[in-house]
Amino acid sequence: MFHSPTEFVFGKQTEEKTGAMAALYGAKKALIVYGGGSAKRSGLLDRVEASLKEAGVEYAELGGVRPNPTDDKVYEGIKLAKEEGVDFVLPVGGGSTIDTAKAIAAGVKYDGDFWDFFCGKAVVKEALPLGVVLTIPAAGSEASGNSVITKIDGLKKLSLRTHNELRPKFAIMNPELTFTLPPFQTACGIADMMVHVMERYFSNTKNCELTDRLCEATLLSIICEAPKVMANPDDYDARANIMWCGTVAHNGQCGVGREEDWASHFLEHEVSAIYNVAHGAGLSAIVPAWMTWMLDHNIDKVEQFARRVMGVTPSDVQGAAPGAKYKKVAALGIERLKEFWHSLGLPVNMTELGIDNPDIDLLVKKLHENKGELVGKYVPLDCNMSREIFELAR
Amino acid sequence: MFHSPTEFVFGKQTEEKTGAMAALYGAKKALIVYGGGSAKRSGLLDRVEASLKEAGVEYAELGGVRPNPTDDKVYEGIKLAKEEGVDFVLPVGGGSTIDTAKAIAAGVKYDGDFWDFFCGKAVVKEALPLGVVLTIPAAGSEASGNSVITKIDGLKKLSLRTHNELRPKFAIMNPELTFTLPPFQTACGIADMMVHVMERYFSNTKNCELTDRLCEATLLSIICEAPKVMANPDDYDARANIMWCGTVAHNGQCGVGREEDWASHFLEHEVSAIYNVAHGAGLSAIVPAWMTWMLDHNIDKVEQFARRVMGVTPSDVQGAAPGAKYKKVAALGIERLKEFWHSLGLPVNMTELGIDNPDIDLLVKKLHENKGELVGKYVPLDCNMSREIFELAR
Repeated sequence: MFHSPTEFVFGKQTEEKTGAMAALYGAKKALIVYGGGSAKRSGLLDRVEASLKEAGVEYAELGGVRPNPTDDKVYEGIKLAKEEGVDFVLPVGGGSTIDTAKAIAAGVKYDGDFWDFFCGKAVVKEALPLGVVLTIPAAGSEASGNSVITKIDGLKKLSLRTHNELRPKFAIMNPELTFTLPPFQTACGIADMMVHVMERYFSNTKNCELTDRLCEATLLSIICEAPKVMANPDDYDARANIMWCGTVAHNGQCGVGREEDWASHFLEHEVSAIYNVAHGAGLSAIVPAWMTWMLDHNIDKVEQFARRVMGVTPSDVQGAAPGAKYKKVAALGIERLKEFWHSLGLPVNMTELGIDNPDIDLLVKKLHENKGELVGKYVPLDCNMSREIFELAR
Repeated sequence: MFHSPTEFVFGKQTEEKTGAMAALYGAKKALIVYGGGSAKRSGLLDRVEASLKEAGVEYAELGGVRPNPTDDKVYEGIKLAKEEGVDFVLPVGGGSTIDTAKAIAAGVKYDGDFWDFFCGKAVVKEALPLGVVLTIPAAGSEASGNSVITKIDGLKKLSLRTHNELRPKFAIMNPELTFTLPPFQTACGIADMMVHVMERYFSNTKNCELTDRLCEATLLSIICEAPKVMANPDDYDARANIMWCGTVAHNGQCGVGREEDWASHFLEHEVSAIYNVAHGAGLSAIVPAWMTWMLDHNIDKVEQFARRVMGVTPSDVQGAAPGAKYKKVAALGIERLKEFWHSLGLPVNMTELGIDNPDIDLLVKKLHENKGELVGKYVPLDCNMSREIFELAR
């Protein structure tokens, strides 16, 4: 099954088409959702609002969404949306803003508590339609039907997956809007999109040659383009490639036909829920430990990753004993991934992430409380295994 | 701009979901369109009709669509669709059947002659919705808004491109339905999907790293899986990969962000219109000549194709003079592509295609009559250039 109905409007100045696109998809009055003040300061919000006015679409505004978005902002948005009688939700921002907007879109049409959807008590049957103006390439939320929200009470960071109910009708993607992203945030986005591919790549389903190759193509492109955007934030072509990579990484095609893993995301969600770190940096700190643990438990795709993505060749492991070469290739792939993330200024363990003394008991307890006895699919992790991986990630 | 809203329902026995999917997209009465008798003989048509009945969808039938489909069948279909009052069109087959169904879907809602859409006199504004049951992976028509029809009077083979008006709402894709495809037809489909990628790959737009990589991933997957389906027609996984490759090759993602070429398709359309050869075999006969001509006129992407897709390495051209290596790499890529197509039983020139003495004057005349003074974008071909390529393809 593959269905990616979102209409992507890509290119310079495309934010000026926001109003026309919203009107095309039936908006009479939109709730604009945004994060910190940068959308306002940069003038982007003004341009979006001008385009809504021109298209005859009214709007209300909800600002102040923060990274690792929390339930309080969703409740505020649902209340506002009802008071204002909006029929469309328009997030202007990155994953946190879009995910908050999705939760609002579902909550407005539901009589109970929106959190029911996230904790599995209810299923989203209808929602207000959404359109997106994307400013941060990272989460891929512009191309998915999913949302991740943290409940402040108990620090539960849970994700909601829908088929199409919460999939944006359109996404406006102007790479120029990403020129001003700070380097660390750019790098975090890059790690996030890489791991979105990797969660799907590390699969036990055999013979998905095309899906594997599409994953590798996306990862190779990110690895090629990332240094360019770090060195020259105004490189339009490189920013455009990175932005489109973030979408392709998460629109579903990298997972077609197979079981996906997602253990690294679940491990990381506990880290960012408790320590409030940037999600992408949390991922770059956890994934190398997860991969290293896999060397002894399910090595095959790690070895393939090393060869096909990190470019490890037989000559790189010439010295090793014949029986040790396979594992050596895989391990070298992990080393190269760490070097690559370091080159972008990303942490590759929890110490580098700024967590000197992680409370591993708490991380393990929360993980299995929130996600069940077994976490992930590539190797389903019980609490002893997840503890070993958190230890490796120190 | 990228928009691929078709819902792909992929896997074993998925044809049993046809009725439910048609009903989901609003069908009350469908016009089933099919080709030769194989859909009937294999029992597929019975299964599709049973599933329609179960979902409460009525239907009428139009059989007998032939390869290189012609306008007479479209007129017949439009008449039948009006008489029967259908509100949905359901092709069961490959590209010829789907393209005929698309032309019918547009023609039913238009007061004038449907051919107006193909010769550029009118634009498709509305059409009956379509769903597809795919039996031949090749044309990619299940994922596009396009159609190619030949007008018998004057042998004009023209294509119609729409944004979304003629894009199928859903496509049922069961790889098992392709087990019984004859080897030559399987091979023709493989050539067709490869060239769909290549028409987009050969582009002068720079810095589309991700789009290039996605093209290469698709081509590498086809090259990996094609020998498997030729050797073992019942290999489900290989058939599934090939089927999905055909869709990805033509759903638009291989062209995102850049100018596309399409000269080889235009050259081939004249060959198959005049000599009624299989489209895929026509392509494998023309493309090597087109690429060879490009060695002296725009070599860069041919060289990249040789390295990244056909795996030509520096050691393959060790003996060549330093200044000659680049061209040697590119030429070797063409040789390997020809070897690959030969290994599938495909022709790589017009003699092998069975056209010993092609009427090149007529081919050139028709080409520029139908497609204009300049054909293609990678190098826009005038009539002298297209003549040189047809000569190379003898």
